[in-house]
Amino acid sequence: MKKTRIGIIGSGALGALYGARLHRAGYNVHFLLRSDYDAVREHGLRINSWQGNFTIQPPIYRSAKELGSCDLLIVGLKATQNDLFPELLAPTTHEETAVLTLQNGLGNEEAILEALAAKFGHAEASMERILGGVAFLCSTRPQPGVVDHTDHGRLAIAEFSGPATDRTRSIAAAFQEADFPCTVSDSLLKIRWEKLVWNVPFNGLGVAAHHADADIVMKDDPLFESAVTLMKEVIAAARADGVQIEPGFVGKMIEATRPIGAYKSSMQLDWEADRPLEVEAILGEPLKRAQKAAIPTPAMQLLYGIVKRLNASR
Amino acid sequence: MKKTRIGIIGSGALGALYGARLHRAGYNVHFLLRSDYDAVREHGLRINSWQGNFTIQPPIYRSAKELGSCDLLIVGLKATQNDLFPELLAPTTHEETAVLTLQNGLGNEEAILEALAAKFGHAEASMERILGGVAFLCSTRPQPGVVDHTDHGRLAIAEFSGPATDRTRSIAAAFQEADFPCTVSDSLLKIRWEKLVWNVPFNGLGVAAHHADADIVMKDDPLFESAVTLMKEVIAAARADGVQIEPGFVGKMIEATRPIGAYKSSMQLDWEADRPLEVEAILGEPLKRAQKAAIPTPAMQLLYGIVKRLNASR
Repeated sequence: MKKTRIGIIGSGALGALYGARLHRAGYNVHFLLRSDYDAVREHGLRINSWQGNFTIQPPIYRSAKELGSCDLLIVGLKATQNDLFPELLAPTTHEETAVLTLQNGLGNEEAILEALAAKFGHAEASMERILGGVAFLCSTRPQPGVVDHTDHGRLAIAEFSGPATDRTRSIAAAFQEADFPCTVSDSLLKIRWEKLVWNVPFNGLGVAAHHADADIVMKDDPLFESAVTLMKEVIAAARADGVQIEPGFVGKMIEATRPIGAYKSSMQLDWEADRPLEVEAILGEPLKRAQKAAIPTPAMQLLYGIVKRLNASR
Repeated sequence: MKKTRIGIIGSGALGALYGARLHRAGYNVHFLLRSDYDAVREHGLRINSWQGNFTIQPPIYRSAKELGSCDLLIVGLKATQNDLFPELLAPTTHEETAVLTLQNGLGNEEAILEALAAKFGHAEASMERILGGVAFLCSTRPQPGVVDHTDHGRLAIAEFSGPATDRTRSIAAAFQEADFPCTVSDSLLKIRWEKLVWNVPFNGLGVAAHHADADIVMKDDPLFESAVTLMKEVIAAARADGVQIEPGFVGKMIEATRPIGAYKSSMQLDWEADRPLEVEAILGEPLKRAQKAAIPTPAMQLLYGIVKRLNASR
């Protein structure tokens, strides 16, 4: 695995952090950079982490073509950029490349699959190239070439096409070696929906309810009630999508949210930084699956409509 | 009725318009003014109406005490100012005064009742002094002493304590004489809830969904779906509050909304003019009644939470 040529596609606050720690742990990591290229070439990639600061000078590239063929791609792009997959994946994949997306929400694996199938044909074989993961971390990119990693970092990863394999476990072991707890799941859909139980209310309200961070939602009666309602709607939608979420999960999420204080979701951070919002991946696609199964999701529908319009209004 | 001393409490875009047209029709109308006092004293009260422009020089007063005892009070205050009722009603009411509120939403009659009962005692007798009405009109107050009345003007009024009486009908006749269609209803609660079927979605979304006027809501798929969902929730809440709304009412409301184009609800206008929003009267009180009856209203709850926070954020 140390010789595996790893490419980081989307080297933002998430991709750059995971990539840098893998690099420091001795893995063969290559970064595709755009706006950060000059800063990293001059000053290196600087990680300010609650687990320790460091700077690396990894191999960096300005384009997918320069980056070239990799054995493992780790995708940290915003889901709003999924239309770039064809041009990003065509030059960076070979017959055996595994593509792990750590993006938020639903629909990302499908977008990757479409790009891979366009190059290699055989949708089924292409599906087997794809893995997905959910990341629980607090990190921001305050300036080009710098990542602030303020808390957490845990991952859960899974195969897109079925239960975990030796490949899944060896990728998880690499993250572990880079000091990130990483579990392996037999159901990608399950870890994605479980994360959405939290992401739908707290990402959506962080934008729709005037910068309501987690602490504000937890302490405001009507917003808290709506967060619980949204969580229940997501769980019902997950069930219709084939995922059983354990009883008591809402209470568990609520209890896990109490200690995190004034935490801002990624969508709230995007909103405040005037970046496009991952509306479809986090709100639209889950809603679409619920509606397809005729599961009533009135709160999700309203939240989606409001956030979609706010996003389009800029 | 022409000798009835009528006092207008809350002479904004609504109160000033109805009062001015009653005055022009020969009624004995007196206006309580605050910020508009000087402008009206100097230039009169100017009405620019789709039904004809005119200016009047009516009797005006700076305080409720100056205005003094009236036989009929017409209340056009914003519901956000209902805490003023004790000081406004104490000097302006006698044993036989009728108080007609044309304010938006639920809870206004109760606030008037509380103020009257504090002066006269006997909650039941005080209740019989109160009437309520809903106004369908487009009017704004672009500057002190000027009202722009751009469309509609129809009223429906009813007694707070029971079916319509001779008093109700004679007040309606006065409005008719002032060229406003005015129907009389035997159920105040019914006309209030029917108006809320439209007001909850279009007022709430006009604020929560980034200035979404009626036209935008009608043409945006997720917002339109949410508007329909909200209408159905309001109808279910009304039923729990003892009001049966006829089948097909949602479709009727939708059809009535199509031709009004880019109409801005009063709450959207208040929001854009940086005025306090009637959150509790239009969203909070209907929600409270639904929750008391255990009627699920997830969309209303979310809309209320978002608008309440937006209102508090200024």
